[in-house]
Amino acid sequence: MEVKVIIVQEEILGANEEQARKNQDRLDKHGILTVNVMSSPGAGKTSLILRTINRLKVKTRVAVIEGDVASRVDADKVHEQGALVVQINIPGGCHLDASMTENALNNLPLEEIDLLIIENVGNLICPAQFDLGEHRKVMLLSVPEGDDKPYKYPLMFTGANVVLINKIDLLPYLDFNTDAFTQAVSGLNPKAKIFPVSCKTGEGLEAWFSWLGDEIKQMKTATAHG
Amino acid sequence: MEVKVIIVQEEILGANEEQARKNQDRLDKHGILTVNVMSSPGAGKTSLILRTINRLKVKTRVAVIEGDVASRVDADKVHEQGALVVQINIPGGCHLDASMTENALNNLPLEEIDLLIIENVGNLICPAQFDLGEHRKVMLLSVPEGDDKPYKYPLMFTGANVVLINKIDLLPYLDFNTDAFTQAVSGLNPKAKIFPVSCKTGEGLEAWFSWLGDEIKQMKTATAHG
Repeated sequence: MEVKVIIVQEEILGANEEQARKNQDRLDKHGILTVNVMSSPGAGKTSLILRTINRLKVKTRVAVIEGDVASRVDADKVHEQGALVVQINIPGGCHLDASMTENALNNLPLEEIDLLIIENVGNLICPAQFDLGEHRKVMLLSVPEGDDKPYKYPLMFTGANVVLINKIDLLPYLDFNTDAFTQAVSGLNPKAKIFPVSCKTGEGLEAWFSWLGDEIKQMKTATAHG
Repeated sequence: MEVKVIIVQEEILGANEEQARKNQDRLDKHGILTVNVMSSPGAGKTSLILRTINRLKVKTRVAVIEGDVASRVDADKVHEQGALVVQINIPGGCHLDASMTENALNNLPLEEIDLLIIENVGNLICPAQFDLGEHRKVMLLSVPEGDDKPYKYPLMFTGANVVLINKIDLLPYLDFNTDAFTQAVSGLNPKAKIFPVSCKTGEGLEAWFSWLGDEIKQMKTATAHG
């Protein structure tokens, strides 16, 4: 028997977009650069966020929105690092949406924030379909997940402004082909910035901090002239 | 500011259950043991399935339903191993459901199958909410994902009959605490069988094959006496 392929079409809800635009207007007005961080479970979102807060916090006021199905373990870690944090729990839910984000914004002192990091639910599928009002989409792919993921979860890769290849400290023990992965991402999304990093050892993270610092500056300049 | 926690309730659709029961009746009638394999992206579902087909195919007629957002790379690998395979693609979807499974069953020669393996979409959330008509739920957690996942994705762990801890060959390079993970799973789900394995090296897989072989035998016996 040959391989049979069945295509199931699902309608993607677009009702989320209007609220996302309102959120972005609000963030623009306050000059808050907002990044939506997405990945599979356990790819290293929280580690990246903790590293980022720690590196930027002297000059930059950072707040974090933590999206999770259950628990507040990540929010507590972020809080310990000294950043403002709002936890959103979505029992049975698989992504954040723009109205949940609005709810979180209502619970943050927006005039005291330069950078807002949204840690989405660990999932390579649904988060890519729901804009939250962020300025930049950042995704992490950890090398143990394999270099074939752009083919299997294309929307996540086509929509990302930045793709971080995390856990490069494990490359010697895995069959991950960084060139093949980078080519696959660039094929789907030629404008995506790609940074190989290890949130464990710190390798490669300066390039990410530098990109983020430039984005924050541009946002401040735009707000000052807006 | 203290950590704020916002709970968003979502209604979980129960309409799937009736179709799942119909699927299971149909599978029972044919004596086909059916397992629903779930994990994060890149945790090793396809590697487990290829190993399982290869080990059992002399005595057991195996079929596979492959669920993916996009691509047919896994279905092609399974087909090369000599198993029957149906690919279901769900653009924008994050899980299989019972009606997609029925559609796949309509495309398989049920009288020629002893074991049906359903490879669900790579996602730790939604697949746990949708029964497909399977007899057993099997989940893989790969050690690079971290030992805190039972707290963050509890439904996946409470519903599983078997939890495979995959990629144990990477344990020397990671901070994964196997005892803590096992205790967390057992706390949520005392009946879950837990097998530490490496689908890369083959370590630990005999225990999984043995469990699966016993389940197939019991199904055959039940069908013969039913």
